[in-house]
Amino acid sequence: MRIDIITVVPDIFTSPFEASILKRSIEKGLVEVHVHNLRDYTNDNYRTVDDYQYGGGAGMVMLVEPIDKCISQLKSEREYGEIIYMTPDGDTLNQGMANTLSLEENIIILCGHYKGVDQRVRDMFITKEISVGDYVLSGGELGALILCDAIIRLIPGVLNDETSALTDSFQDNLLAPPVYTRPAVYKEHAVPEILLSGNFPKIEKWREEKALERTKALRPDLLDD
Amino acid sequence: MRIDIITVVPDIFTSPFEASILKRSIEKGLVEVHVHNLRDYTNDNYRTVDDYQYGGGAGMVMLVEPIDKCISQLKSEREYGEIIYMTPDGDTLNQGMANTLSLEENIIILCGHYKGVDQRVRDMFITKEISVGDYVLSGGELGALILCDAIIRLIPGVLNDETSALTDSFQDNLLAPPVYTRPAVYKEHAVPEILLSGNFPKIEKWREEKALERTKALRPDLLDD
Repeated sequence: MRIDIITVVPDIFTSPFEASILKRSIEKGLVEVHVHNLRDYTNDNYRTVDDYQYGGGAGMVMLVEPIDKCISQLKSEREYGEIIYMTPDGDTLNQGMANTLSLEENIIILCGHYKGVDQRVRDMFITKEISVGDYVLSGGELGALILCDAIIRLIPGVLNDETSALTDSFQDNLLAPPVYTRPAVYKEHAVPEILLSGNFPKIEKWREEKALERTKALRPDLLDD
Repeated sequence: MRIDIITVVPDIFTSPFEASILKRSIEKGLVEVHVHNLRDYTNDNYRTVDDYQYGGGAGMVMLVEPIDKCISQLKSEREYGEIIYMTPDGDTLNQGMANTLSLEENIIILCGHYKGVDQRVRDMFITKEISVGDYVLSGGELGALILCDAIIRLIPGVLNDETSALTDSFQDNLLAPPVYTRPAVYKEHAVPEILLSGNFPKIEKWREEKALERTKALRPDLLDD
């Protein structure tokens, strides 16, 4: 899979892609991530990427032209399954969307900044608008990182233990059951006895019950789907 | 405001906190962020922070003891308004939660990894569990970054133009209206005439209508609250 990220703050991406599974998946050749500095697609000396908005009001708006140039350049080199714009009014990311996107060969992720991009960018180029949640961030960059992480960990071979991804929260619309590790007793707080019993069918049943219980208590909406 | 982040992958945080508004808010002294490597709170030569889960199954679980040591150390130095655990089964982050948390003086953010933390960590130390959305990430670090960004930009003085934050999506339960900037016509795509009219009361009305229209079309659920 190849991911092209378009941003005005390329430096944000350095350390996250040099750590953890993102780094390993890139080293293993399972994914290629290219970060493009939008300022490299400007023509003026100031490398302008934004301007005041028409009609007045606070906040700058990202210009169409540099984005057009960058996206058009990429599209002339290969086909993209989706051209995604990270925006708080996009479709809210969920696990199903991450699963679907992890099957794409090439995607572009455009990060908004300031007040966002000129509406014509969205009308002319964007095939999918994604929000990572109902909150406002200073730019689309952290959302793009979240999206990359959610997608990349699903690519076969990225996680060492593939069953680990399958038993995550949300993969079956249930929250994960509580987990425990050594020591069996910590400052008088004991691990539930059933987990120490060695009776695996019973443990499995206990986990299913706890997962359902937790989902009913914390996120009953997940059970309606 | 002071934010203490506890993590097994401290390097992830380097570049995001050296870029954009996160950097500026730290430089301005409006926020202090301290990243703690959980391995520094271990006693063994391997600096072990995780172990197999009781009852069997894929995925490692983070040990209670190093987390206890780190949190107890921090709590002995100052009072914390919230000790937050980033987890997919926490309360889903929204703008209201970000607003509330931005008023805290000191918070701790614990990042989960692998299969998450031993349940006893949650029972003994955590005051708030937060999820950034209904998807699984390889760890809590990117969620912690999202949370920091959402909170920090609300601290007075962080954004240059304070009205800019107030007209964001979600602050009034409405998505933002479309925005446009130069040029007035780009490859035959014209900016709506009203925005070029100079009639500001009319422009304001148009923006309100568009915001409502967009919210009705894309996120009718926001209007129910």
